Amino acid sequence: MRVAVDAMGGDHAPRELVAGALDAARSDDDLTVVLVGHEEQIRAELSELDDDGLGERVAVVHASDVIGMDAKPVEALRAHPDASILRAMGLVRQGEADGIVAAGSTGAAVAAATMSLKRLSGVRRPGIAVPLPAQNEKGVCLLIDAGANPNCRPHHLAQYAVMGANFYREVYGIADPRVGLVSIGEEETKGIHLTKDAAQLLRADKQVHFAGNIEGRGLFGGACEVAVADGFVGNIILKSAEGLAEMLLGTFKSLMGSGDRAKALGKFDYAEFGGAPLLGVDGAVMICHGRSERRAVGNAVLACARAIDHHVNDKIVAGLGGQQREGSV
Amino acid sequence: MRVAVDAMGGDHAPRELVAGALDAARSDDDLTVVLVGHEEQIRAELSELDDDGLGERVAVVHASDVIGMDAKPVEALRAHPDASILRAMGLVRQGEADGIVAAGSTGAAVAAATMSLKRLSGVRRPGIAVPLPAQNEKGVCLLIDAGANPNCRPHHLAQYAVMGANFYREVYGIADPRVGLVSIGEEETKGIHLTKDAAQLLRADKQVHFAGNIEGRGLFGGACEVAVADGFVGNIILKSAEGLAEMLLGTFKSLMGSGDRAKALGKFDYAEFGGAPLLGVDGAVMICHGRSERRAVGNAVLACARAIDHHVNDKIVAGLGGQQREGSV
Repeated sequence: MRVAVDAMGGDHAPRELVAGALDAARSDDDLTVVLVGHEEQIRAELSELDDDGLGERVAVVHASDVIGMDAKPVEALRAHPDASILRAMGLVRQGEADGIVAAGSTGAAVAAATMSLKRLSGVRRPGIAVPLPAQNEKGVCLLIDAGANPNCRPHHLAQYAVMGANFYREVYGIADPRVGLVSIGEEETKGIHLTKDAAQLLRADKQVHFAGNIEGRGLFGGACEVAVADGFVGNIILKSAEGLAEMLLGTFKSLMGSGDRAKALGKFDYAEFGGAPLLGVDGAVMICHGRSERRAVGNAVLACARAIDHHVNDKIVAGLGGQQREGSV
Repeated sequence: MRVAVDAMGGDHAPRELVAGALDAARSDDDLTVVLVGHEEQIRAELSELDDDGLGERVAVVHASDVIGMDAKPVEALRAHPDASILRAMGLVRQGEADGIVAAGSTGAAVAAATMSLKRLSGVRRPGIAVPLPAQNEKGVCLLIDAGANPNCRPHHLAQYAVMGANFYREVYGIADPRVGLVSIGEEETKGIHLTKDAAQLLRADKQVHFAGNIEGRGLFGGACEVAVADGFVGNIILKSAEGLAEMLLGTFKSLMGSGDRAKALGKFDYAEFGGAPLLGVDGAVMICHGRSERRAVGNAVLACARAIDHHVNDKIVAGLGGQQREGSV
């Protein structure tokens, strides 16, 4: 497998991106990482880091430009055709890489993927699946869509269920992940037209383990492995959770010493989760938080490799085919 | 002022409701509390608690029935016309009380208020305004609507801004509360049709200090005093915040000892905030969390008294009148 890494994106580029990519290559012998960005800077980082023994499993592809974190995505991509994120996506499109890890602007990564990569067969709208901490077996609830598609229709939500469940099954290793539909109230009668109609589609899809409506307590409390929401609601949940967690952790970190207690904070640390897959495009795309450091990048590259190795996208296409047959009955 | 308290609603009724009401009456000499519910049970609580000196400032009104926490609101209210929540609302409707504090089922309280009380002049939809912890001057961001109106239109959101700002100004004592519109991205161009249209109305309303779009970081980080959202999104934010806070606090409480460190948890304690006003109905309605104990109830009764004393509802009506004139230009 070959995973392209946008080495120039994010708050700690290129150093932490390069280091994380090497870590991943060291721990997976079948993996080649392709570092995309300013060649001279990347080679300087490589020479300072220990890449002994990786040999041809570390490649560098030059790109002269970078999209800033605060740039307007579509305009910036048009103005910078040799941006590292576009070059990296190009490698995936041309089959020179199977997947990509990016930690720059999320908007730019989504826009670059949408512009560069085809949608998977049958997919109506790609969706971002963000891992949130949850009290289930794997400690993760995958929330999809977290903002790629703010204006959703019911069948978009039904597709997100299939995409999220297949990713969760293959990458987190849970045989039959439960899918919850984010709504107000757990009763079937609660919600808005969008969620009520989506619930009907989900109940009809025999391949999806539909756990019904969920609220915030269920999402974080572990009532499901995948939580489906439209991109407006999903993004607001994500940003609210980040805002609240930041506020709470700020308070507790100042109160607690380092050591064992601080370790407990680990499960609320983005680095544990690595990245968020953009599902529905032809390629394995993992988007990391801009703050990502070495460990988060390494975890994201490994998750990307796992998604490739387990043929998640083929399974999504098969799952959606089944859904369409169900729907046409 | 007379505040009716549904003494039978909530997890700790009637004891904590009665005790909280007495605390409030003790700290505000102009306040009479009317305890509504099973008279014998309430008198038994009163005889065990110290109500010396309150005299006629504590009244009891009998109601033979109670709505359970898990009952379906509308059906339950129809089946139980002598339920304490309905009797208490009836006192407000008849002018025998100026406001009400309820800690039973939120759905039942909203339904009882909607059935019993008129809407304020000009109000299209009442909204629940829930106080969330925030890093602003008062430590509170009031989120409206938290679930009364899941299918919102832009002018509903614009009205919520006026209602929330007037409540915040009068009850929390901030002269010019900032109003944020919950959306995805802070730029004007971000959001869905609903929020973009609402933003136009809010920018045109000279009485509202509109702070633009906010995300979760702004909401909890203190970028505004009032956050406006449709009832579907608002309820999801509330429940997600509860779910995440519960998960995080569970982790930290088990790690921290009691004493000073635990005190820091106070600001994430519902008891501090007391209750959530249902705004837009003719009466001061405060809804408490079902878990509320004495202190939370006492704070809610005092907030209710303050809303009455400061004529919040008159100010809302005046504010909406101004908004309509603005809108018609």
